[in-house]
Amino acid sequence: MTRTLDLNCDMGESFGAYKIGDDAAMIDLVSSANVACGFHAGDPTVMRNTVRMARKAGVSVGAHPSFNDLYGFGRRRISGEHPDDLEAQLIYQIAAMQGMCAVEGHKMTHVKTHGALGNMAATDPDLAALCVRAVKSVDPMLVYVSLPYSQTYAAAEKAGLQVACEIYADRSYTDAGELTPRSEAGAVIHDPQQSLDQVLEMVLNGVIPTTGGQRLPVEPATLCIHGDTPGATDIARNLRSALEKNGITIAPFAKP
Amino acid sequence: MTRTLDLNCDMGESFGAYKIGDDAAMIDLVSSANVACGFHAGDPTVMRNTVRMARKAGVSVGAHPSFNDLYGFGRRRISGEHPDDLEAQLIYQIAAMQGMCAVEGHKMTHVKTHGALGNMAATDPDLAALCVRAVKSVDPMLVYVSLPYSQTYAAAEKAGLQVACEIYADRSYTDAGELTPRSEAGAVIHDPQQSLDQVLEMVLNGVIPTTGGQRLPVEPATLCIHGDTPGATDIARNLRSALEKNGITIAPFAKP
Amino acid sequence: MTRTLDLNCDMGESFGAYKIGDDAAMIDLVSSANVACGFHAGDPTVMRNTVRMARKAGVSVGAHPSFNDLYGFGRRRISGEHPDDLEAQLIYQIAAMQGMCAVEGHKMTHVKTHGALGNMAATDPDLAALCVRAVKSVDPMLVYVSLPYSQTYAAAEKAGLQVACEIYADRSYTDAGELTPRSEAGAVIHDPQQSLDQVLEMVLNGVIPTTGGQRLPVEPATLCIHGDTPGATDIARNLRSALEKNGITIAPFAKP
Amino acid sequence: MTRTLDLNCDMGESFGAYKIGDDAAMIDLVSSANVACGFHAGDPTVMRNTVRMARKAGVSVGAHPSFNDLYGFGRRRISGEHPDDLEAQLIYQIAAMQGMCAVEGHKMTHVKTHGALGNMAATDPDLAALCVRAVKSVDPMLVYVSLPYSQTYAAAEKAGLQVACEIYADRSYTDAGELTPRSEAGAVIHDPQQSLDQVLEMVLNGVIPTTGGQRLPVEPATLCIHGDTPGATDIARNLRSALEKNGITIAPFAKP
Repeated sequence: MTRTLDLNCDMGESFGAYKIGDDAAMIDLVSSANVACGFHAGDPTVMRNTVRMARKAGVSVGAHPSFNDLYGFGRRRISGEHPDDLEAQLIYQIAAMQGMCAVEGHKMTHVKTHGALGNMAATDPDLAALCVRAVKSVDPMLVYVSLPYSQTYAAAEKAGLQVACEIYADRSYTDAGELTPRSEAGAVIHDPQQSLDQVLEMVLNGVIPTTGGQRLPVEPATLCIHGDTPGATDIARNLRSALEKNGITIAPFAKP
Repeated sequence: MTRTLDLNCDMGESFGAYKIGDDAAMIDLVSSANVACGFHAGDPTVMRNTVRMARKAGVSVGAHPSFNDLYGFGRRRISGEHPDDLEAQLIYQIAAMQGMCAVEGHKMTHVKTHGALGNMAATDPDLAALCVRAVKSVDPMLVYVSLPYSQTYAAAEKAGLQVACEIYADRSYTDAGELTPRSEAGAVIHDPQQSLDQVLEMVLNGVIPTTGGQRLPVEPATLCIHGDTPGATDIARNLRSALEKNGITIAPFAKP
Repeated sequence: MTRTLDLNCDMGESFGAYKIGDDAAMIDLVSSANVACGFHAGDPTVMRNTVRMARKAGVSVGAHPSFNDLYGFGRRRISGEHPDDLEAQLIYQIAAMQGMCAVEGHKMTHVKTHGALGNMAATDPDLAALCVRAVKSVDPMLVYVSLPYSQTYAAAEKAGLQVACEIYADRSYTDAGELTPRSEAGAVIHDPQQSLDQVLEMVLNGVIPTTGGQRLPVEPATLCIHGDTPGATDIARNLRSALEKNGITIAPFAKP
Repeated sequence: MTRTLDLNCDMGESFGAYKIGDDAAMIDLVSSANVACGFHAGDPTVMRNTVRMARKAGVSVGAHPSFNDLYGFGRRRISGEHPDDLEAQLIYQIAAMQGMCAVEGHKMTHVKTHGALGNMAATDPDLAALCVRAVKSVDPMLVYVSLPYSQTYAAAEKAGLQVACEIYADRSYTDAGELTPRSEAGAVIHDPQQSLDQVLEMVLNGVIPTTGGQRLPVEPATLCIHGDTPGATDIARNLRSALEKNGITIAPFAKP
């Protein structure tokens, strides 16, 4: 039996003279790129170059929208604005990214929300519905990338969008199926073998092992690869290699 | 014989808590709206609301991109950046605007560059070609709005884009067919009757009367209406009425 | 017996081509201006012109810092950033405003936090202490403008700063001495006579009447005048006139 | 005989999550830091941390203002705005930087304009006068760092400011005493020995050797060290060492 898994990574986060991440190396290790849309990171040139790079590498491109917060890199939680404003901001970013892909002849496949927005939407049903609505209004064929056991997953399914279930190699899960908060002990898995084992368990056995000893059902579509940690490309290379050795094919969840 | 003329106006220039222009009044007086794309003015909510308003009023919507200069409202001349950066910025803005129109079920018809960018491109063939290239790469069916006797007009025609020739009621023309610089006497026509006469001459007789007494051929498609001058809506209402009394039909140059 | 009260108003909130408020009219009605510092509103030219106007009118100037959120006009709640970042942002804004006052020969007298930041700090002791620390580090002689019965008031007093107790004419108070949340009925007082009566009670009798029928002690130093409501200048003019007729002298709480 | 020379370097150019330059290494190699003020680069936290680092290292701090152009890193030429606007922007930046220094107990000593603004002011007498006026209005004791044979040097001297004459090790000079434009052959000196020889000639003999064979008089106060070129710290370390071996003392031109 062959199982397929997508590896996704946030890319295109440079801005003007400012460079972040080693996209040129990472593009060969992943199958999907979530590209920043110029609000929390990225700029039009970076977007265009990232799309070109992804197209050449056969990597799928998705929009990676967030709050309009370049200073905070999308990591600050922003609240208190009218929901219509945030919805329009998401539409704007997704449409701009889709247009950039079209110009480069590379069909955009998905959307994944970034940082604080993603975290907030995962537990807030109204915010989750807003994000899903924005994606669907731009293009109902876009795949929504979401953690399982989250408000966004439920909202995307309810809206009839295709959802790509995203898993983490280096984060543990609570009995509720959520990522253990970073403030708690054991939230981050540092051991490569333990990370690999967790991924294999999720992909091959369809089970999330939780910190409380539960085994939650899961159908993983894509694994989140971090691009901004020290040694990010080495970690990604080793993980990909180990996954392939275990009979898992790395490929985009949606063809561009 | 019936002649048709489009009336275009810059709209959607508000930003967040900041309001500019009386778009709600102006939308009933024009047939095309050039909507700011969030770089020199406008924001996603303003864009969306302006598109909705235009669709209801049967008004065509075009993208109105400029430099990324909110502080300067796109009126500052910016140079010295790599042309690829500006081209990507234009693609981004046009694509975002087109996406917002699509979400609202209103096909975007045209592009008109704003402020300093428009002025610079009118006389700089490389910059004109860059602007045209950006528009064409997003959608070759978009109409390029341009002054006649300009580098942008020539570049758009050369690229095979449909060009909507834009005329002014309240600006005089040099013998070269360009707008008389504002720094020169007689650049601005303040008398409503003189403004009307100039427009009729251009529309009905196909002739631009110049300050040097020349008569240059012209095929006007659209008249620029200013939205930010005192009494703008009254001026627009009177001009539209006078044009209609002279047998000119006001209608978009391209159907949304 | 003569009682003195300061009238303060947020000013200098225009940005580039965008105008907000009728500062030229309001400057003659108030005794203190809280001037936006370019992060949520305002720009260096607006700051300079507002300081000039205030100096001519004998009006005190204070810094009115907030989050770095021009789009949200400082009304969006931003959280999740490192406290040191916000503290440095406040120092930056206050120092820039103080420098602009110095250039114009007008000593800056006070600081009042704006919008969401002010609201959040009023109930969050850590955030209150952070704001106070920023003000004190720039100049320990600056007066801190704060609502009574708030964390900011307590923090400023504890830090040894002079505090100017701020009251509202058009907002009711809870039994805890806080403004009734706008989401609740009776939060806003629309009747001018009722507004006046509340102010007189607070200024002349030193008492805050609460919605629960309590009478809380208060020593008001300054009354907040709104500049962005319809008819703002008329309301301000009438209120000032009524206060003066009741023997209250309008004057800054601190001489510039 | 002992000669003294300052080594200055642009610092504090990081922004939010974006890092540029190795300030921690460079701070031990220079005697003056020109710190970005948040308009073209830098942010309040970066400013504060850079000032702290400089104070500990005994390095002088100056404001390094530019256009409000984070995207362009201050390298884009911006024109067409009202001169008063630019002047206020410079005052704002210099005052904010001076305030940050004061908070950290480190007296700010100088101002050096950045990038496109510096280049434009060097050859435009009106712009040069504007920059000098802004500096002087904030504090007439601030030292103005400027290339010799420039409009800024002349303007600063005329205004009575102390001027620190700045020289380059890795750029050749025209017969007019200006830097050879980068577009011309021989503009950049790549050979370390040739760079050193040029500096020694300028510092020890008071002479600028020009590309046309002229010898122009000069009284160098400070040498510009680049922080953003590959191997920047190695180049700086070697140059400093070589200067010291030739009897030149490295020290700030003004004591903080």
